[in-house]
Amino acid sequence: MHALIAIDSFKNSITSIQANRIVAKRFAAHGITATQVAIADGGEGTVAAWLANHAGGQAITASTVDLAQRPVTATYGYFATEKMAVIEVAAASGIQFVTTTLTPLATNTYGTGLLIKDAIERGARQIILGLGGSGTVDGGAGILRALGYRFWAADGQELAMTGADLSRVTKIDDRHVLPQLAEVSFISAADVTNPLTGPNGAAKIFGPQKGLPVAQIQVHDAALAHYMTVAAGAVSAHEGDGAAGGIGFALRYFLHARVCSGFQLLAEMSNLKTKVAQADLVISGEGQVDDQSFMGKVPIQLSQLAQAAGKPCYLLVGRQKGANETFAKQGVTAVLPIVDQVMTLDQAMAQGPANLERMADRLARIISQS
Amino acid sequence: MHALIAIDSFKNSITSIQANRIVAKRFAAHGITATQVAIADGGEGTVAAWLANHAGGQAITASTVDLAQRPVTATYGYFATEKMAVIEVAAASGIQFVTTTLTPLATNTYGTGLLIKDAIERGARQIILGLGGSGTVDGGAGILRALGYRFWAADGQELAMTGADLSRVTKIDDRHVLPQLAEVSFISAADVTNPLTGPNGAAKIFGPQKGLPVAQIQVHDAALAHYMTVAAGAVSAHEGDGAAGGIGFALRYFLHARVCSGFQLLAEMSNLKTKVAQADLVISGEGQVDDQSFMGKVPIQLSQLAQAAGKPCYLLVGRQKGANETFAKQGVTAVLPIVDQVMTLDQAMAQGPANLERMADRLARIISQS
Repeated sequence: MHALIAIDSFKNSITSIQANRIVAKRFAAHGITATQVAIADGGEGTVAAWLANHAGGQAITASTVDLAQRPVTATYGYFATEKMAVIEVAAASGIQFVTTTLTPLATNTYGTGLLIKDAIERGARQIILGLGGSGTVDGGAGILRALGYRFWAADGQELAMTGADLSRVTKIDDRHVLPQLAEVSFISAADVTNPLTGPNGAAKIFGPQKGLPVAQIQVHDAALAHYMTVAAGAVSAHEGDGAAGGIGFALRYFLHARVCSGFQLLAEMSNLKTKVAQADLVISGEGQVDDQSFMGKVPIQLSQLAQAAGKPCYLLVGRQKGANETFAKQGVTAVLPIVDQVMTLDQAMAQGPANLERMADRLARIISQS
Repeated sequence: MHALIAIDSFKNSITSIQANRIVAKRFAAHGITATQVAIADGGEGTVAAWLANHAGGQAITASTVDLAQRPVTATYGYFATEKMAVIEVAAASGIQFVTTTLTPLATNTYGTGLLIKDAIERGARQIILGLGGSGTVDGGAGILRALGYRFWAADGQELAMTGADLSRVTKIDDRHVLPQLAEVSFISAADVTNPLTGPNGAAKIFGPQKGLPVAQIQVHDAALAHYMTVAAGAVSAHEGDGAAGGIGFALRYFLHARVCSGFQLLAEMSNLKTKVAQADLVISGEGQVDDQSFMGKVPIQLSQLAQAAGKPCYLLVGRQKGANETFAKQGVTAVLPIVDQVMTLDQAMAQGPANLERMADRLARIISQS
């Protein structure tokens, strides 16, 4: 018997790679072989997942700056044969760098741009950029600057393009961009479909969690609209432009990126359909499955693939919200919560790996016996 | 697919009959038919289990007295065709009647004797007595009195045979016993193997939980030894005599009862072996499985039967103490705890039926898919 194991992370408890390994090990103990596919949603863990899923990659640690221009090192994945790099926005421009006194007005994505430049200079001609976990709202201008775009104010001053500079820009100059840029194709991995501006825009929806003062939301939304007008001639409500504080816009408009959902990318790059077809059963899961799981989250996308292929699919989860029948309609044979005794949430998080191991063992015993 | 479902009670949460029904209903929803066998350990629920498992029985409600001679009604099961009655000691002499001021020195099993008498006068020639849950430590003397045995003190006074009277008895007179008694066979259902007296005896081990003052334990142990000597000529350490405050002794010595473990009786009377052979899988379980489960408790006895017959066996439990592998060695395919999310013990107990239903549904989905 052969299983495809592709479990998403249990946030703050078990990573995707770790979850897959735990289950694969228990399955092996009961004679079930497995193909493991690490899941990444474009946020933290994306690079590690790519390196785990695809042979021939190497982890490159490069010097760059964080969102406040402080020197940091960050790691991205490089696949020499494919001339491909996988970079997380979170690595240099992530929300983990935000402090209470550091608002998006003072930060930008320049550090992520430096990583992209590093990859291009190393030879990358395809860049996959994971947009999750960003701490900035700079419309991706920092990335563009690092790649050679220059931004000017009306008074002729060159701008560093922090969030506060967005409203001042009057000219964007692409004469000095990295020459190799013309040969590079970008893919942005994001599950966010918000536009850049307006009531569903980057400032309004994601600003507050990144420390944008409430009083600045309207102002910053207007600044993003101004920046978009300078760049593209008009404001548009293009889906996904609002991802990662507006990086979505910069990638689409300036770098002609193809936008992929996390799952779509994974499915394409890991040949998920073929792997499902080759397996006798599919294992997925994540920290919680609920109503939102039906809006494109990995476990349910996978269960639908399994259903289409006529394969049973089991979800190992931290918490199941919703009736068994609801999940069954999406091709889930059974959702198996890994909490298996009276415990607190803290205990459940701390004991996640052990709980997962026990439940995977039970499932393997049932499946191999049946 | 056909399942044998025989789940023991989840104490204070789900009865055996209820648990079987919940699981059978979920199984039916996924096309799995089931034979249900209610489990009884000789305590509360024994009569209900017999009536559920065997056609042709009726619940008889009879007037009797509780362990302090207060009038109560109690129910036993009567099977007219088989001339068989199933009686719980707990019904009239149960620990639920004990209060802080009512110690075993003031109580006896006379009320249980009255129920036995009622059954015999109704026509019963086989009496199955469930010994669990008793609140008395009278050596079964109360039962004997109700059946016509008479107990005398040295001063010629007839004794009512409360616990305090045990030390005073010098003569036991059987000349006036119920005439039908000679035709009646008794089976005692008990999982307790303690002797009547000594460090593992009825006073020492079970006295405290029935309210016997610590200061009285030695004295009462000596009283039981005295009573046994008067009755049988000497003290012996016969296994099981200490069950139900010494009812085990009275049943064995005076009424020549056959002692059966709860499981043995169930297996015989319900043809469990045949039912296992006819099923594709076996479902059992109980509130908790642990080390003690390997000492003859129903779920593990059943899993061993299933193993011998080459059938998968699943245990639905409130709590699993011990590794999956330990249970697997006893023929358990998988232990499935029904707690499936972060919750307190109180919540787990209160939501027991709903938790069981969800887990049974998952199991049915897995089994029917495999």
